[in-house]
Amino acid sequence: MKRVAILGPGLLGGSIALGLAQYPEVEVRLWGRRPEVLQEASALGMVSFASTNVREVVAGSDTVVLCVPVGVMPELVLEALPAMSPQTLVTDVGSVKQLVVETLAPMLDGRALFVGSHPMAGSEKAGLAAAKPDLFQRAVCILTPEEALTPAEATDRATIFWEALGCRIRQLSPLLHDQVCAQISHVPHVAAAALVNMVSEILPEAFDFSGSGFRDTTRVAGGLPAMWSEILLSNRHAVSGGLRGLIGQLEAVIHLLEQKEGSAVAALDSFLSAAKDRRDRLRLS
Amino acid sequence: MKRVAILGPGLLGGSIALGLAQYPEVEVRLWGRRPEVLQEASALGMVSFASTNVREVVAGSDTVVLCVPVGVMPELVLEALPAMSPQTLVTDVGSVKQLVVETLAPMLDGRALFVGSHPMAGSEKAGLAAAKPDLFQRAVCILTPEEALTPAEATDRATIFWEALGCRIRQLSPLLHDQVCAQISHVPHVAAAALVNMVSEILPEAFDFSGSGFRDTTRVAGGLPAMWSEILLSNRHAVSGGLRGLIGQLEAVIHLLEQKEGSAVAALDSFLSAAKDRRDRLRLS
Repeated sequence: MKRVAILGPGLLGGSIALGLAQYPEVEVRLWGRRPEVLQEASALGMVSFASTNVREVVAGSDTVVLCVPVGVMPELVLEALPAMSPQTLVTDVGSVKQLVVETLAPMLDGRALFVGSHPMAGSEKAGLAAAKPDLFQRAVCILTPEEALTPAEATDRATIFWEALGCRIRQLSPLLHDQVCAQISHVPHVAAAALVNMVSEILPEAFDFSGSGFRDTTRVAGGLPAMWSEILLSNRHAVSGGLRGLIGQLEAVIHLLEQKEGSAVAALDSFLSAAKDRRDRLRLS
Repeated sequence: MKRVAILGPGLLGGSIALGLAQYPEVEVRLWGRRPEVLQEASALGMVSFASTNVREVVAGSDTVVLCVPVGVMPELVLEALPAMSPQTLVTDVGSVKQLVVETLAPMLDGRALFVGSHPMAGSEKAGLAAAKPDLFQRAVCILTPEEALTPAEATDRATIFWEALGCRIRQLSPLLHDQVCAQISHVPHVAAAALVNMVSEILPEAFDFSGSGFRDTTRVAGGLPAMWSEILLSNRHAVSGGLRGLIGQLEAVIHLLEQKEGSAVAALDSFLSAAKDRRDRLRLS
């Protein structure tokens, strides 16, 4: 890569720019809607060119990274298309992949090299001010090529791009990606928010007694509501399915709590032991 | 206090002993079932006397702290009663209070000064080896006197005892205590375990992609299953009620996800915003 166009100056776009600064041979360009944010990025030396005109930013870039909300991607790609070539690598950072790939792959077919990406890095903080050069170090980045549809060159070049930022690459189909993220991210996010809202509804004075356990369990509920509404709705089938699975687990516990003591103790113990055993095997990796 | 009997050499009992070491004038005594654990505590200089005979440990003690599982407390108190006097302060560290107070208060009425305590400190690690002298520093300790039943002297002396270990004291009725803990601790614990078990059931390969969000949300599921089964069953009504409240929140989200886009976005946004606003107000205190 020689010239990278980052479309969207948020936490992820900004962190890509900062991460690429270690490669002085790479020219980094930035598109955003708000001139003041672009000026800030330029003033900080994060990019060599910034503009609110997406075609100007994309022109001559070999790599284009979509760092905008999933719902905005199609119109932005349409706008940028005239400035792309069939050799332009286009990828994105969206947290859902089926909808993105379904929408963008046909638009870009033969007009650019597209593969979906999901670098699994983030923060409760948002915006350019929260960007960090090492945000992607050791993060997993899931690429979602579609068998027989995604050009191998797109996947290869996206791999090189994300590895240059420190990511470890995994590949999943867009469908499996979305199911995986529903399980480990989207449903837990809803559960964390639901726990907070449950306390607000049932016994708000209980918040005064909350400790590190409650804070950890509900930390992700501090994420940006607008971003998360979009993620949840974009992955609604997998999220609904996961939520039903979670409700099933909770109902099983209620059932045990309502049984007579003897059998319930053993069953509850095995429910909690199964969770502990599996949880204990998760490693900081 | 001059002589403190700690009944139960686990994380909490051990941490009380270590915390009292800053008061050389206080004699610390320890009861446990397993001689090897008592020998370890003695060898480490944590206590001045240790025995598997509870009456020997309690004899002459002005303060007795029950640091055993809630279900074991009644028999242990019965065993120790002959060594107590009407001026002996008896308190406990149980995570549920209604059951404990209902059971112990009548047994000890007129024969010792009893008030329930719940120091809200702990760890996923258990046992004497995990004990720390500062475990209670800045922790909230909830005392649960029963109006008109608990002698004021019991509450006053328990306050002095826990403050000496660094706790901040709050008072709640046993019933309200259990409802509060269901909300901020017991239901979140079940939710964390249920999330792990949901992933195991629906898509176990998703664990390979879990990051810091999933790890934080499920951290408490690493707690000891036997201890948590007992807590949940001892507080089954409040926990069931909380779980039903949580299920109601999750069902509301499913309902929103199944609606047509327009109204769902705003409603989902307000669900997540309510949770974020409330969560953001929780402070490390």
